[in-house]
Amino acid sequence: MMSTNGSLSGFDGVEDILEKYIPPEHLGSVKRVLYGQNCGSPVAALALDPSVVQISKDADFDLKGFTFSALPEQLRPSRVVRVGLIQNKTPASTSLPFSEQRAAVHDRVGQLIDTAGAGGAKILCLQETWPIPFAFCTREKSWCEFAESAETGPSVALCQRAARRWGMVIICPILERDSAHGETIWNTAVVIGNNGNIIGKHRKNHIPRVGDFNESTYYMEGNTGHPVFETAFGRIAVNICYGRHHPMNWQVFAMNGAEIIFNPSATVGELSEPLWGIEARNAAIANGAFAVGINRVGTETFPNEFTSGDGKPAHTDFGHFYGSSYVAAPDGSRTPGLARHRDGLMLVDMDLNLCRQTKDKWGFQMTARYEMYAEFFQKYIQPDYQPQIIRDPSL
Amino acid sequence: MMSTNGSLSGFDGVEDILEKYIPPEHLGSVKRVLYGQNCGSPVAALALDPSVVQISKDADFDLKGFTFSALPEQLRPSRVVRVGLIQNKTPASTSLPFSEQRAAVHDRVGQLIDTAGAGGAKILCLQETWPIPFAFCTREKSWCEFAESAETGPSVALCQRAARRWGMVIICPILERDSAHGETIWNTAVVIGNNGNIIGKHRKNHIPRVGDFNESTYYMEGNTGHPVFETAFGRIAVNICYGRHHPMNWQVFAMNGAEIIFNPSATVGELSEPLWGIEARNAAIANGAFAVGINRVGTETFPNEFTSGDGKPAHTDFGHFYGSSYVAAPDGSRTPGLARHRDGLMLVDMDLNLCRQTKDKWGFQMTARYEMYAEFFQKYIQPDYQPQIIRDPSL
Repeated sequence: MMSTNGSLSGFDGVEDILEKYIPPEHLGSVKRVLYGQNCGSPVAALALDPSVVQISKDADFDLKGFTFSALPEQLRPSRVVRVGLIQNKTPASTSLPFSEQRAAVHDRVGQLIDTAGAGGAKILCLQETWPIPFAFCTREKSWCEFAESAETGPSVALCQRAARRWGMVIICPILERDSAHGETIWNTAVVIGNNGNIIGKHRKNHIPRVGDFNESTYYMEGNTGHPVFETAFGRIAVNICYGRHHPMNWQVFAMNGAEIIFNPSATVGELSEPLWGIEARNAAIANGAFAVGINRVGTETFPNEFTSGDGKPAHTDFGHFYGSSYVAAPDGSRTPGLARHRDGLMLVDMDLNLCRQTKDKWGFQMTARYEMYAEFFQKYIQPDYQPQIIRDPSL
Repeated sequence: MMSTNGSLSGFDGVEDILEKYIPPEHLGSVKRVLYGQNCGSPVAALALDPSVVQISKDADFDLKGFTFSALPEQLRPSRVVRVGLIQNKTPASTSLPFSEQRAAVHDRVGQLIDTAGAGGAKILCLQETWPIPFAFCTREKSWCEFAESAETGPSVALCQRAARRWGMVIICPILERDSAHGETIWNTAVVIGNNGNIIGKHRKNHIPRVGDFNESTYYMEGNTGHPVFETAFGRIAVNICYGRHHPMNWQVFAMNGAEIIFNPSATVGELSEPLWGIEARNAAIANGAFAVGINRVGTETFPNEFTSGDGKPAHTDFGHFYGSSYVAAPDGSRTPGLARHRDGLMLVDMDLNLCRQTKDKWGFQMTARYEMYAEFFQKYIQPDYQPQIIRDPSL
């Protein structure tokens, strides 16, 4: 039974309900406003290989496919790339030995990665710190054992093998142990090329201090700037989790040339679910780039109780990671989300030409007045900055 | 009849359809995800004075009221302000003499303003360039006759009289004629204090060049920065129309201290309707401020035909201004929209304490790393800027 004030765990996504109950004569209008249109039509379904569909049934994960088109151009061929995104539960109990937990998540995510490869994905992104439970709520430092080298760690190596096998770029977000800098811990996305080589890495720019997101207990703000990775299949960037709340983080990745910005995340319903459909999509619109929001799924329970800074009793779970991973396009259209309760793989064909076409149409990049903002920020960062306030003189 | 691919004019808003067709056991969940929650509950209805409701019926305009709460604080009283927003059609034919067109819109909007005052609004905002048809599609310069002084113009004077009568702050967006600077034309919002005095003005920062929005034919980028107006009822700012596509425009108003940012607009369905619910709401979330999106309503037809830069035949209308004005709160919740086809007045009680409470909770203002972006923008504005690109060395 679902409550009428909106239970967090009792339904499997807004789209299913809209499709089920809105009459056909209204559904198009509702979806046009809520999900936009791509080249004048609803975002199209992608025909998926029956063998891949069968794997998703046998292995019990959500599988969805969509296509974003662009207009044909006269002087440039279309540039369609198939992008994959994976959301997954932590499959093993957090009470098991760490080696067993790692083996379980490697098995499950390895299976999902191989399905993406078999489904033809050329760029694949996993969720934030996928090899470990999102244990930062506990503030217990033993979880740091899971941190691994961005160059030689076992989860990175798993992704390198898969990248080589499928000729697929893989973004592998991990908890990084930086032994070259005195065992510094980072929240990092490793970008692996389609030949299995490591192209580079990006470290999370913005670190939360809210709710159970005690990440600032574990690692600091990243020191890698806003890199864009030029891969065989497109120029991509990674805005890790909480960075999606910072419009400038998305923006600077796009200003550096990203055409797809991935947002591997781990976020829970009570805090952020109404924001989830807004932020990545706004970033796609504002910046003329595809934005890919990927959220963890399921409820993780930890061995020892902890409090959440909200005055409520100690407990052992983080709340429900609501999945709902989706892709937003620069023209304002978006896909439905993956399921709220199940592992999932989404395959999305996107014509990257849509990025420049949208920029040419809207012209945000030329009407942005960057000089004005450069000047503003120089002044604002001074401790004695005086805000531009005009007070009603009659008061 | 509505088409299933989403007609632009055939329905009166997504919310009406959701309320009508989604069963009660699912409606709460759908609305929680799509419209958010304010202090743990759906955004509440505001009880409206029966005499005001009667006026809306007699004068045939949509009237809606909502309340945004904040948590009680121990050291600061609540700061509830009633905000009004008005969307209106251009009531007279654009073929009539300009004096008659102006008299007609003054009559109609004057009535709506007085209803807002009678309904208790303390800060009221009108739509972009409300005293004139949105004639910039035509590129005909005769429409510049409508431009008026921001200090002594007749539409400003009308608002000053109403501000004095009702003790109400009014934001009056006009086409400004700046005779002190050689008859320069601007797109300007005049901010009038609750004593009827002019507090100041803001000129539109970002000017579109897209579709029928030939505004760059008429006026240039504003030269007033990002002012925040400290009124008797709160600190407010005005992000005029196309500036909503620029996340930094919202952001700098908020960084200067705005707690309510109004977005008086004029935008049409084919271009922007799926973006409309995203941009102002994202700005509210990202910046810890209320965002108020106000759109013109109706279809305006002009005496002479014009083309739209889309290869289609010449025509005489701009498309449908879809209304749908709404308010978004810093906690991610939002109101439903006003109607898509009718004039409308929305009255919204908002506890401005929600702004600082949300900032204290999420901490975006402290995790934003402004120094990093200040440095980036200084580099980016150089013509020889080299983007931070990491190329796969194996390619």
